[in-house]
Amino acid sequence: MEHIPVLSLGDILLVSIQVDLEDQLALRLQEDLSNRIVATGAHGVIIDISALDIVDSFIGRMLSTIASISRVLDAETVVVGMRPAVAITLVELGLSLNGVRTALNVEHGLRLLRDARPALFALDGEAPEQPEPDTTPATVRD
Amino acid sequence: MEHIPVLSLGDILLVSIQVDLEDQLALRLQEDLSNRIVATGAHGVIIDISALDIVDSFIGRMLSTIASISRVLDAETVVVGMRPAVAITLVELGLSLNGVRTALNVEHGLRLLRDARPALFALDGEAPEQPEPDTTPATVRD
Repeated sequence: MEHIPVLSLGDILLVSIQVDLEDQLALRLQEDLSNRIVATGAHGVIIDISALDIVDSFIGRMLSTIASISRVLDAETVVVGMRPAVAITLVELGLSLNGVRTALNVEHGLRLLRDARPALFALDGEAPEQPEPDTTPATVRD
Repeated sequence: MEHIPVLSLGDILLVSIQVDLEDQLALRLQEDLSNRIVATGAHGVIIDISALDIVDSFIGRMLSTIASISRVLDAETVVVGMRPAVAITLVELGLSLNGVRTALNVEHGLRLLRDARPALFALDGEAPEQPEPDTTPATVRD
């Protein structure tokens, strides 16, 4: 397979990684994704890795790179669908997916991106009320 | 890769086919998809084939089978992202993707499914005008 499709969902791009990413494919994905962000003005990227049994340092680095490129292009990246075993291996390997946000599945990822930029989703033009930033306990995760 | 991930978007399931589907993988996909339809009560299935260069009779038949299974489970199937060359080949081969609806991309597919069942998307609780509201008892159960 010569490329990984990038799907559009409103102003969010969705990528489902199902194949082993060797160098060329990973580079192609980075290129496709950044082109699509610019072309569509997308503000969010969701990368589903639920099909991956293994996330090694190469894939981990690629995810971080994609997140960095997207951020420069004003889009947030969320990695979703990580298997428990993958999470364990990542931590054991000392890979922390720097700068990459994660969510349980695509729906949680969508919600995360929506919450991050609620103003973009206010259809009537008036910015919605922002809850005070400290009440949502991100510290619940241990 | 031992399986193709099925992603949830609200009450719609999304499958992106990126790898060559041999028998086992296709059967597994049918099984996963029908299990997920029942588990989530999804009413729509979107299958993205934008990564496929070739849709032969095997894949065509599989898409038709998935659509038939989904329909029995009360879910509509839309195939999206077909390349022009694939469409030409399909017609030349005499494959018509019986019972499969198509759309240009994921967004069009989502819209198609929404238009097909507007009642499910009425957020304010009042059902939009339906021809015969009382003759569809199957939609009451969820």
